Amino acid sequence: MSSFRFYHPIEVRYGDLDPQGHLNNARYLTYMEQARIQYIRSLGLWRSDSFLDIGIILAEIIITFKSPVLFGQPVRVGARVTRLGNKSFDMVYSIEDSRDGRELANGSSVLVTYDYASGQTIPIPPHWRAAIQSFEQLTEGG
Amino acid sequence: MSSFRFYHPIEVRYGDLDPQGHLNNARYLTYMEQARIQYIRSLGLWRSDSFLDIGIILAEIIITFKSPVLFGQPVRVGARVTRLGNKSFDMVYSIEDSRDGRELANGSSVLVTYDYASGQTIPIPPHWRAAIQSFEQLTEGG
Amino acid sequence: MSSFRFYHPIEVRYGDLDPQGHLNNARYLTYMEQARIQYIRSLGLWRSDSFLDIGIILAEIIITFKSPVLFGQPVRVGARVTRLGNKSFDMVYSIEDSRDGRELANGSSVLVTYDYASGQTIPIPPHWRAAIQSFEQLTEGG
Amino acid sequence: MSSFRFYHPIEVRYGDLDPQGHLNNARYLTYMEQARIQYIRSLGLWRSDSFLDIGIILAEIIITFKSPVLFGQPVRVGARVTRLGNKSFDMVYSIEDSRDGRELANGSSVLVTYDYASGQTIPIPPHWRAAIQSFEQLTEGG
Repeated sequence: MSSFRFYHPIEVRYGDLDPQGHLNNARYLTYMEQARIQYIRSLGLWRSDSFLDIGIILAEIIITFKSPVLFGQPVRVGARVTRLGNKSFDMVYSIEDSRDGRELANGSSVLVTYDYASGQTIPIPPHWRAAIQSFEQLTEGG
Repeated sequence: MSSFRFYHPIEVRYGDLDPQGHLNNARYLTYMEQARIQYIRSLGLWRSDSFLDIGIILAEIIITFKSPVLFGQPVRVGARVTRLGNKSFDMVYSIEDSRDGRELANGSSVLVTYDYASGQTIPIPPHWRAAIQSFEQLTEGG
Repeated sequence: MSSFRFYHPIEVRYGDLDPQGHLNNARYLTYMEQARIQYIRSLGLWRSDSFLDIGIILAEIIITFKSPVLFGQPVRVGARVTRLGNKSFDMVYSIEDSRDGRELANGSSVLVTYDYASGQTIPIPPHWRAAIQSFEQLTEGG
Repeated sequence: MSSFRFYHPIEVRYGDLDPQGHLNNARYLTYMEQARIQYIRSLGLWRSDSFLDIGIILAEIIITFKSPVLFGQPVRVGARVTRLGNKSFDMVYSIEDSRDGRELANGSSVLVTYDYASGQTIPIPPHWRAAIQSFEQLTEGG
């Protein structure tokens, strides 16, 4: 989970905390979701105003929690596509302290490309594949 | 709700949206809460690591919703203390589009100063009163 | 805020709490929203699967916080329409301890009937007006 | 992920949904968290009013998403301890449609027993081990 070409900063909100005084575990998924969507937007793959055009659904997620995330702590989320399959792709995430890059949590997800209009999984659109391969410098099998 | 000496930027998260595709109404309170806490921190009134030292509790809130808040829209929250009573004070808020200052919602709240250790309301601490009066240029009766 | 013909029970979730150990203030709006939608469903006014058919948008909300809401506390939300205007109506809410009916918070909201297809406010549909008047035993001017 | 001795019902809230009209992915963690805490309470292991006495922290989570969770759908979360280690234990979860038991998602987590006062991991307290082994009919190595 070394280096990322894409990072998105997140402000820890008071409303993200739970009675233990640190980031509630469910918010880690919110942070990863926000980084994932901003990644897709930054590659120009999500141009529509309609959320039903995003075309990816979450099939699986794994999170490893390493250190509590605190209020006032500057945080960034690294996101990277690590595999492009036929109808699915993998992303990994790293939630880090922005000051020193220390990893506070990491995660990975399997995402499935989906056509909301027909309600069916679809192959990764060719322009998505090309844009991601180019950005991540992935080889064909990667 | 004209001008504010304090603004706090907020990123609209995908996780803040609801099925109508815009900011869920409950999140307006989260945004105002975040601005309120950052206001207090910016005045140096909240130095402890313990959230139980904040010492203010929300007694009343009013929100007027003017325009939907959209994903990707840059947003800032203006916050200002408009009244310092004996054991309570008032804050007003404006949720605005950061690009042009257009107001998307506004709100006001009554906040009560509270000692969590004793479980009782307390007069506004003198250094809070002084710091807020100075920052807001409030007169004694203000 | 005396009596309600409609109550909806809500389970306080650990994820609803904040570092002060009780219900975060933004969740009061979530609880009132949930009661409002269940009220509309219970009157048979919301039959579609599409959330864009609900046809009401929140224009204003007021909440008065009376006692903290705690984890494990059984809670119900009373909801009632108190006024039917031309293109808007008012609802009041009471968040109560289900065991003894003690009020923990109350609120009111102004709701505007809206046609999402045309993007315009619309008069309250006659069958909504009739159903609500009948349920609440409101008179024509009420 | 066959059978559970403990189920907790969850009401899907409008505020849990996202622009795709179904349960936002982060809420699955909220639902599992709620089931986990109610499991611990139901075994009498969490008697204090202080959330800092819970004594377990989340080290890892895996979720597999199978079907969207919809508004109005009655949902229950099965929770079960599957392994009791020295300083950690495993729980598995199943989010199911309450009407027919159909699994909508499942998950597992590694939980670490923790002493908030000293800030250190601690062995699973003997009365926790005994209560969980008895409830789950786990053998010593289980």
